[in-house]
Amino acid sequence: MTSSHADTHVTLRELGLRDGLQMARSCPSTRQKREWIRIAHDAGVRHLEVGSFLPQDRYPHFADVRELIAQIGGLDDCVSSALALNERGVDDALATALDEIVLTVSATDGHSMANIGKTTEEALNLVRYTELARRLAGCRLRLVATIPVAFGCSIAGPVRPDDVIRLACTCLETGADAIAVADTVGYAGPRQVAGLCRSLLKRIGPTPLIVHLHDTRGTGIANAYAALEEGVRILDGTMGGLGGCPFAPGATGNIAFEDLVYLCERCGYTTGIDLEHLLGIIPIIRDSMPDETITGTLGRVGPPAKIPWSEQ
Amino acid sequence: MTSSHADTHVTLRELGLRDGLQMARSCPSTRQKREWIRIAHDAGVRHLEVGSFLPQDRYPHFADVRELIAQIGGLDDCVSSALALNERGVDDALATALDEIVLTVSATDGHSMANIGKTTEEALNLVRYTELARRLAGCRLRLVATIPVAFGCSIAGPVRPDDVIRLACTCLETGADAIAVADTVGYAGPRQVAGLCRSLLKRIGPTPLIVHLHDTRGTGIANAYAALEEGVRILDGTMGGLGGCPFAPGATGNIAFEDLVYLCERCGYTTGIDLEHLLGIIPIIRDSMPDETITGTLGRVGPPAKIPWSEQ
Repeated sequence: MTSSHADTHVTLRELGLRDGLQMARSCPSTRQKREWIRIAHDAGVRHLEVGSFLPQDRYPHFADVRELIAQIGGLDDCVSSALALNERGVDDALATALDEIVLTVSATDGHSMANIGKTTEEALNLVRYTELARRLAGCRLRLVATIPVAFGCSIAGPVRPDDVIRLACTCLETGADAIAVADTVGYAGPRQVAGLCRSLLKRIGPTPLIVHLHDTRGTGIANAYAALEEGVRILDGTMGGLGGCPFAPGATGNIAFEDLVYLCERCGYTTGIDLEHLLGIIPIIRDSMPDETITGTLGRVGPPAKIPWSEQ
Repeated sequence: MTSSHADTHVTLRELGLRDGLQMARSCPSTRQKREWIRIAHDAGVRHLEVGSFLPQDRYPHFADVRELIAQIGGLDDCVSSALALNERGVDDALATALDEIVLTVSATDGHSMANIGKTTEEALNLVRYTELARRLAGCRLRLVATIPVAFGCSIAGPVRPDDVIRLACTCLETGADAIAVADTVGYAGPRQVAGLCRSLLKRIGPTPLIVHLHDTRGTGIANAYAALEEGVRILDGTMGGLGGCPFAPGATGNIAFEDLVYLCERCGYTTGIDLEHLLGIIPIIRDSMPDETITGTLGRVGPPAKIPWSEQ
């Protein structure tokens, strides 16, 4: 994970098995999830978020998170990532071989309360707890603090860039190793993304900065382009563009991972990902999640046939 | 029509009633088209492409082009635009009150032959003919030369920027008043768009440069953003994202006009267009073109409710 501007390699985190499932009506079986991970890894994906540490009875979609983390542990050079929302989840995560734990620290109390039932300050306490717990456990678990609604909140309204930067710094002082800024409700425009990324990279670089975008209003890929051009080198997406947000009515999901791979390669960035191979995940989505809309375009049309579009 | 970088006003050309209809299985009635134009104009759209001058028996979708041109002639400060593919079409156009005639001069002979049955050189002859004919007619008709497949061709392959620039200059020497570069088959990426627009504006500015994009591979709005940031101030779109291309299998259509309005306003450009009012066109599309996919997002989710996204 680096965020040097000169470097043209981009790390893409595929979050379909976590962010892509949390609002879905149906979900892939464990066997299908394992196949998803295998195809992604074979295609060159090196960072997969595969679940949340939540009570299994209320969140059956994520009941197999430990098995998937173990699977990724057996793959060459691949980072497993998962979400925790409370101390119990953090403890459970520490008992696995998980590489990266994700904690959410919303830019607004309104979203934070609605999302995880904690104020932003209480969410910061979970970062402190995790920092302490991993140290006591002698564990190398990487800690990512995600800042939802960093570009505006569907509950609290506008969010000031300075407040996001201050919160990012507090997260880092509290123990986070990386910061993700998330356009949870799909409010961001590319100029705004460019501006916040520029300021954040200046302030927190070389700490890894992750940009997590949704495509609610058609600007998702443009926002990703703006982030890349400012020097961001870690971006999130979900295969097919799965996902959504309970606080953004009518919102489509995350930006489609396959379209993000194409964007990067089309612009001269390298991802190490074989797009054609990656598209083997699409039939798994179609089979196991028939009610979900696949917003990604590359699965339908493929890359341009007659022009070079990638350095690979 | 200006293309000064300092100016933040963007002219958006709505092409739904021409480019959006040419591959459609059904199409709005003349009454519905008139309503479409009325809503667009009321919303602030000042540039509408409303048909092609083609034989009515083979192209019934455009049989009412004269009536629509006459309608626009009666509206305040609104430019009517239409396509012609041959001398007969140009002659017919000159007999109307049309404001702007669009001629296509492909970047490759392969596309030009497949599209209009002429080589690029023969297409240039139509520009020469039109220049002469309008002068003889004493007519102020503006002449736009559109360069299809300016970012790569699904028949001939890669297209060199220098060749596009040279062709644009030839079109201007031959009589064109404005140049449009079109990503007809949806091959473009935003860095490529930025590069070509930068070179073209340097070479042909202050001649108006129009950028016409399709959203085949998810990069359409990112490409528009890249063009805007380079100083392009005239862009095309179709309501709902209607359209397609016979030479780009599986391709979705043009970039959605409503999403383009949102992008511009979200980035601090002004369009003079009331987005909410504009969305009144969507029900006309749903009613009259039930087989077409509406790719635009703003009709589904609307603009962000809680943050300022436009200067209006």
